[in-house]
Amino acid sequence: MTAQTGSGLLAEVTRGSQVESRHLGRAVVVDADGAVVWSCGDVETPVFPRSTVKSLLAIELVESGAADRLGLTADALALACASHGGEEPHAKVAAVMLAAAGRDVGALECGTHWPTYEPAARALAAAHQAACPLHNNCSGKHAGLICLACDQGVDPTGYINPSHEIQRRVTDVLAAVTGTPHTDANRGTDGCSMPTYAVPLRALAHGFARFGSGVGLSAGRAAATKRLREAVATNPFMVAGTGRYDTTVMNNFETRAFVKMGAEGVMIAALPEQGLGFAIKADDGANRAAEVAMSALLRHFGGEALCRTPQDHAVLTDTATQTLRNWQGVTVGEIRAALTI
Amino acid sequence: MTAQTGSGLLAEVTRGSQVESRHLGRAVVVDADGAVVWSCGDVETPVFPRSTVKSLLAIELVESGAADRLGLTADALALACASHGGEEPHAKVAAVMLAAAGRDVGALECGTHWPTYEPAARALAAAHQAACPLHNNCSGKHAGLICLACDQGVDPTGYINPSHEIQRRVTDVLAAVTGTPHTDANRGTDGCSMPTYAVPLRALAHGFARFGSGVGLSAGRAAATKRLREAVATNPFMVAGTGRYDTTVMNNFETRAFVKMGAEGVMIAALPEQGLGFAIKADDGANRAAEVAMSALLRHFGGEALCRTPQDHAVLTDTATQTLRNWQGVTVGEIRAALTI
Repeated sequence: MTAQTGSGLLAEVTRGSQVESRHLGRAVVVDADGAVVWSCGDVETPVFPRSTVKSLLAIELVESGAADRLGLTADALALACASHGGEEPHAKVAAVMLAAAGRDVGALECGTHWPTYEPAARALAAAHQAACPLHNNCSGKHAGLICLACDQGVDPTGYINPSHEIQRRVTDVLAAVTGTPHTDANRGTDGCSMPTYAVPLRALAHGFARFGSGVGLSAGRAAATKRLREAVATNPFMVAGTGRYDTTVMNNFETRAFVKMGAEGVMIAALPEQGLGFAIKADDGANRAAEVAMSALLRHFGGEALCRTPQDHAVLTDTATQTLRNWQGVTVGEIRAALTI
Repeated sequence: MTAQTGSGLLAEVTRGSQVESRHLGRAVVVDADGAVVWSCGDVETPVFPRSTVKSLLAIELVESGAADRLGLTADALALACASHGGEEPHAKVAAVMLAAAGRDVGALECGTHWPTYEPAARALAAAHQAACPLHNNCSGKHAGLICLACDQGVDPTGYINPSHEIQRRVTDVLAAVTGTPHTDANRGTDGCSMPTYAVPLRALAHGFARFGSGVGLSAGRAAATKRLREAVATNPFMVAGTGRYDTTVMNNFETRAFVKMGAEGVMIAALPEQGLGFAIKADDGANRAAEVAMSALLRHFGGEALCRTPQDHAVLTDTATQTLRNWQGVTVGEIRAALTI
């Protein structure tokens, strides 16, 4: 397969009989050996993976034995991989993780925002409570790093900084699994103040082919990725929340498909049984485009091994073409995958 | 100037030293006689103008004399042109408009959503109140149509339907001002259940050159547009709300610039003194792209007639290149206009 340039059409948004908006982007499917199975557009220029790599950042928490020593349960491991909606169970599990490390909300360096799941924000307000860092969509990732630091006898203070010992350790895992150097040159700062390192979309997909299959990883690391996948598969609510794409897909496919969104239109997936990794970047940063495109890719490349029941097919069909309804519930259009696969 | 095809770069979003996302789109500046002064990309293919045309839909309310007979004040006229955040003053003025027509919230057919200005939503929740149609961002437009119907002795029930007498009257004004037929063929349904008719971006810009300058309109219609522009200029909070682009720009420039966003990345402007109309459509539907692009266009084409003080320059500079900060307040990048003007 020859390298492609530019971008391709990922998704269309219709209103009535017309296409109202279009999303361009890049996408790639890679096997566990790193071979490109399919691609659309330039998949070599580095992109910031943002929250898509939270599960890779959680590997060391499990692989080091810290998770076991601290007694972290599967819901906590799922939350470490999450961009959650700040619903009550999310905040509660983040607090449990911090308590396991002998810390509390004061240790979180992610900053505060109100729950992104708006009913949860309004419920807090109705109870006359304020938002706190536990509601930050990244609180699980941060609590995971604090757990790792405390288990390793390292002061977690400043764990968000690139030079902090624990941050360096999890960054080394990211670099190894994606096969891409993580240096000052490709570093940006994420919404939660942790570094994010730009990597080629192809390398990101390869990382998730490895994460899903264990191919090319040490036995200990492969066991850690399997445990994280199972933790998310059994707690799909923890990784996102009510009405969210990641939760919907994994709630249905369990360990057969791992998907994760990231800010600015990035999306990854792994199909462990097929040994495939997927990565998508919507050029314009639109997550709605990455979601419908991912469902189209999963449907095509997952095939009958992924979709075994009518319900399996329905989940991907309904998420690859989503009906848009207005405030009166009237159908006004749709958002649909428009990839040429 | 020869017609262009395709799309051009409107805006870039950076993180660290890299461009993370890009927005393509189309844009056009038209004078009051309809001549294209400048354009980027295809400005002839029809686009849904969405909420950008609310001020055109409000013309008949003023021109017919209904607004005066019902005693509607300037804040009500501004709200009729608004996509507001559902803040308390917005909901209150919508209720006042309905009362002027002898109706109440039950007459609104826009549907209910919680205030888009999240602190307002949380304030409602904290007061243990529910959202109602008054909080719908389009409630002022709907209340305006109900006022017009009641003044004209027409039952407002079903005013959202294309065939309703009042809907037909305001649609006729839209068609006249934009010089574009409004028929079943170019109709879609908006988020608030009213029709939205796709028009060429060039025609939309021409409509706002007319709206701003009065050129090509009857004396009565030109007086109505002037009154609407002044109503918004003296009540910029009413047309959008706290922290919103339209409010920020018009709060500074008053009657020298009229701007209005619409869903799916549409933005219009009028510079009355220069007799120019502007229209932008971000291909991907991103309003953030349309906003920064509009500030760049206003800065260029407004020139010294628009920007008379350092503050004037600062408002456009700060909205054409917006600093992106994370939840800890750390600068992580920027969104900036990237048009080639």
